[in-house]
Amino acid sequence: MLFEITSLIAVSAAGAPADGTMQQSGDSGSPSFNPLAVLEFMSDTKEEAIAWLLSRIRAPQQAGGDGDGFLSMAECQYIIKHELETLRAKDETHVPGYSHAKLYPGKSIIRRLLSKGILIQMFPLHNKEELKRLSFSWYKKIKLSLQPLDKIRHYYGEGQALYFGFLEYFTFALVPMALLGVPYYMFDWEDYDKYVAFAVFNVVWCTIILELWKRSSATLAYHWGTLCRKKAFEEPRPGFHGVLGYNPVTDREEPLYPNAKRQLRIYLVSLPFVLLCLYLSLYVMMIYFQMEGWALSVHDQDPSFWTGVLIYIPSIIYAVVIEAMNLVYRYAAEFLTEWENHRLESSYQNHLVLKVLVFNFFNCFASLFYIAFVMQDMVLLSQSLATLLITSQILNQFMEAFLPYWLQRRRNKKMIRKVQKRRTPGDKELPLAEQVRLEADMSTYLGTFDDYLELFLLFGYVSLFSCVYPLAAVLVVLNNVTEVYSDAFKMCHVFKRPFADPAANIGVWQLAFETMSVIAVVTNCALIGMSPQVKAYFPESETQLILWTVAIEHGLLAFKFILTFLIPDVPKHIQIKLARLEFESLEALKKKVNRLVWIL
Amino acid sequence: MLFEITSLIAVSAAGAPADGTMQQSGDSGSPSFNPLAVLEFMSDTKEEAIAWLLSRIRAPQQAGGDGDGFLSMAECQYIIKHELETLRAKDETHVPGYSHAKLYPGKSIIRRLLSKGILIQMFPLHNKEELKRLSFSWYKKIKLSLQPLDKIRHYYGEGQALYFGFLEYFTFALVPMALLGVPYYMFDWEDYDKYVAFAVFNVVWCTIILELWKRSSATLAYHWGTLCRKKAFEEPRPGFHGVLGYNPVTDREEPLYPNAKRQLRIYLVSLPFVLLCLYLSLYVMMIYFQMEGWALSVHDQDPSFWTGVLIYIPSIIYAVVIEAMNLVYRYAAEFLTEWENHRLESSYQNHLVLKVLVFNFFNCFASLFYIAFVMQDMVLLSQSLATLLITSQILNQFMEAFLPYWLQRRRNKKMIRKVQKRRTPGDKELPLAEQVRLEADMSTYLGTFDDYLELFLLFGYVSLFSCVYPLAAVLVVLNNVTEVYSDAFKMCHVFKRPFADPAANIGVWQLAFETMSVIAVVTNCALIGMSPQVKAYFPESETQLILWTVAIEHGLLAFKFILTFLIPDVPKHIQIKLARLEFESLEALKKKVNRLVWIL
Repeated sequence: MLFEITSLIAVSAAGAPADGTMQQSGDSGSPSFNPLAVLEFMSDTKEEAIAWLLSRIRAPQQAGGDGDGFLSMAECQYIIKHELETLRAKDETHVPGYSHAKLYPGKSIIRRLLSKGILIQMFPLHNKEELKRLSFSWYKKIKLSLQPLDKIRHYYGEGQALYFGFLEYFTFALVPMALLGVPYYMFDWEDYDKYVAFAVFNVVWCTIILELWKRSSATLAYHWGTLCRKKAFEEPRPGFHGVLGYNPVTDREEPLYPNAKRQLRIYLVSLPFVLLCLYLSLYVMMIYFQMEGWALSVHDQDPSFWTGVLIYIPSIIYAVVIEAMNLVYRYAAEFLTEWENHRLESSYQNHLVLKVLVFNFFNCFASLFYIAFVMQDMVLLSQSLATLLITSQILNQFMEAFLPYWLQRRRNKKMIRKVQKRRTPGDKELPLAEQVRLEADMSTYLGTFDDYLELFLLFGYVSLFSCVYPLAAVLVVLNNVTEVYSDAFKMCHVFKRPFADPAANIGVWQLAFETMSVIAVVTNCALIGMSPQVKAYFPESETQLILWTVAIEHGLLAFKFILTFLIPDVPKHIQIKLARLEFESLEALKKKVNRLVWIL
Repeated sequence: MLFEITSLIAVSAAGAPADGTMQQSGDSGSPSFNPLAVLEFMSDTKEEAIAWLLSRIRAPQQAGGDGDGFLSMAECQYIIKHELETLRAKDETHVPGYSHAKLYPGKSIIRRLLSKGILIQMFPLHNKEELKRLSFSWYKKIKLSLQPLDKIRHYYGEGQALYFGFLEYFTFALVPMALLGVPYYMFDWEDYDKYVAFAVFNVVWCTIILELWKRSSATLAYHWGTLCRKKAFEEPRPGFHGVLGYNPVTDREEPLYPNAKRQLRIYLVSLPFVLLCLYLSLYVMMIYFQMEGWALSVHDQDPSFWTGVLIYIPSIIYAVVIEAMNLVYRYAAEFLTEWENHRLESSYQNHLVLKVLVFNFFNCFASLFYIAFVMQDMVLLSQSLATLLITSQILNQFMEAFLPYWLQRRRNKKMIRKVQKRRTPGDKELPLAEQVRLEADMSTYLGTFDDYLELFLLFGYVSLFSCVYPLAAVLVVLNNVTEVYSDAFKMCHVFKRPFADPAANIGVWQLAFETMSVIAVVTNCALIGMSPQVKAYFPESETQLILWTVAIEHGLLAFKFILTFLIPDVPKHIQIKLARLEFESLEALKKKVNRLVWIL
């Protein structure tokens, strides 16, 4: 297994398919050679550095044999990645040939090579055979069946499979709401009077689907064997820097960075920056409302087809600006979180997710909250929601699927033309070296972050305000169906294959969605309280109306928390299986102890 | 260890100190004989049953040696209890001599003996030496130091020690509030105008102390080695019955009871019963208010010293009735939860706690909520709170400490007189058999349930309404200080020594206290919103006032949840120690695997 990687190091590093190391692996075109991962070095890497790294990788000679069958491909790649990342310096003071790339005992070699730019990237190779089979059963045939989650998990790992599982689950969960929304729209029930029923449905719906997802997710994770996975000891992330010291847990030498300093950076720089950005976003929102007012006044003065179109222009511009601001803010958030110098990748991710979520939530929903609760204009709310939703979906599909696909096609064509010049005619299969070269140029998949973020915002549109625009759920369902196909296509053909990451659940996103569902309860109750239908019950006292609304909202929130508490997160039959496993291992331990006593 | 118990079985069973089994353990007066647990049988138990049980207990001959030093006494007793409870029938069809006490393979013998009344009780013996030392350092000397939690844990186990730890923590946490309350009371600041500051303090206080307690509790549990304790596989509780079948987890034969039936009993019988009781409690409350109104009208018509006293009479009667209702309801709740036929003791406990908590909360606080938010009479609220608090404290101290102490004293005197008749004069130390007889007659300690319940209600009085009666915290602090002494005394001299139960935290009570603190935020916000001070800010619009109050309340609740999320439940230094432990065991495992490879 490890040997196969070493050959591929040489392929990418020396730039020629037939160099010394490559020959060791035999004919690269032979089907028995099944490469798992590629390391790309900078083009003029010194030979001595590569020779040293190879010797270090080969050092523990126990490794060998292919894990096919017993381990999934994704698992093999995960193991290789782990092995490479935990390759530690012993007594080397620097990377041979690169005196500025300092090493000290215990430092991860690969991380140093990456941070110094000697190693450009490290990625697993696609397996053409498997990929063809996977993509056929995934998105190529027109079908009524579900996504092949087990196959996705086998090829890409649990993290990816859980994302596609969640996407599918979310889409199905939206179907009842979409079905309810269509007659509302068709028969013009949406006279902003009838939305009480829809809002009540919303509140119940968003609590229950999240609870049920936890159970589905636990069932999937149990079948994949990751449900009770213990996290391995986390290494410092590549960008982490500090003064050399001893880690209190491992006693290994590694950079240390005082937590107090990090907290200062978070609370004195990052937090004010985020607040400033939120203020800016509010400011942009106000400009939008001015534009909106101006467009309306023009339309009112002299209504024509063009002024009718003009009304929608500010919303469209605002939607585009929102997307642009989200994008720019994203870079700033990444920069800031990097600068906060988190020791662990997980802590970095959590801080990044928090920053991005708060801003995106504010940026996307502030105008809707303003319209709903300050202006109290339900017609405008419905209009804005529709425009925001449709524009952002079109933009997303374009940025996410079409653009990368088109770029990739162009790149591929150029590449294939180059390859064909050199290739002997009649040789149908692409040689390994060419495949590696092709895939090394593909874009890097940056994880499920953006995909979940998109779903999060869609969930927000649907759960917060869909009662005033009942078609929202239909639009989101349509979007999700195309999303499945475009995401699947991207994973298979646009991006480099990502390293698998084992996961037991969707992690911090579960919390994010649950928070959104709490906000949804509050919002829907407020919308109900403001509806003319409910107001009619309290013709004299507005105070009574508000008090009742608040009381009902508190009751619903309490009910929601009780429900969360009552519905077990893991289904009964999985609980029994887990208990059985635990019991059997205890019994086995007892027997072992008894046997030891007997021996003594 | 086990041998020592067997001798004590005989002591209590045959009724004479010098029977056959007793002699095996040598002179019962010798100090080297250190009994750990006692099993009391009914007085005419058949010899063959006892002989059989003894042979079964002695069967695994590996056991032996005293655990002193390495294990705490509490741990030794826990092991003995576990050993006894997991003593299972093999091919016996019934208890020898008792053909109606059926057995089947895998049935716990002790549980069957208990359920058939053959075995009356099973309890560990006090150790006079240790107890003297413990009680001296605990409550006998006048001291400024804290409670000896480590010693309590050593003698009684972690569950008890955590209760006393929590009691102490809670008392200290109340001191700032008590200090703040005194000037309020002294300088007559309590003109129901100034309580905004107090309410704000309340909200922040009750969030923070619960978070900090989690950390203290984790620190204690870490030092006692129970923090990461895995729950052992739970046996069915003694009262559980059903049709014999196979447990899906263990494959052992045991009674099974369909969950659907239990759910039906819970939702169709228990839930309506609880609701009925709540209604009854409301009814009683209404009667109280009528009495109150009558007393006031009498006082207003013809005010004198006696009518001034009369005003307080309804509150006192109501407080007594509340306590009585709580007591009666408690028995009903126990009966119902028993009847629901829960398989696990933990599930039984949770359902019981839930039933009792809901009713007690309602019973104790409904009248205060009614006065505060329906009648909006802050003077009456403060009066009622004071009366309720003082009356229930006096009642509690009487029922909990004085009454059992007095009964115990009477019983002891009678016993000692009897013993002295038989004893040879000059023999100063009480023979073991007499000690067993004395302790077997002591009351049984029923666990920390009632103690926590009392703290829970006190926490409620303080966190919900203390802003209108600032002396509440002072009263609770005084109560807690006497509570420490009376509880300690009870544990040492009134009750039989309880079996230790290992615990990592205060369990379901943490949740109960946190729920109360959420309710406290809502209540305090409402009280602030109703204060004349705040109302003066919104002289014209009551709607604005309510909306602002609700907004601030939501903000505070959100802040509370964020705070709960941000403060880690386990202090950093404990986290590092745990990670180090984990890391070291992983490294050791790696070495072992390597050695195995080397051997092969």
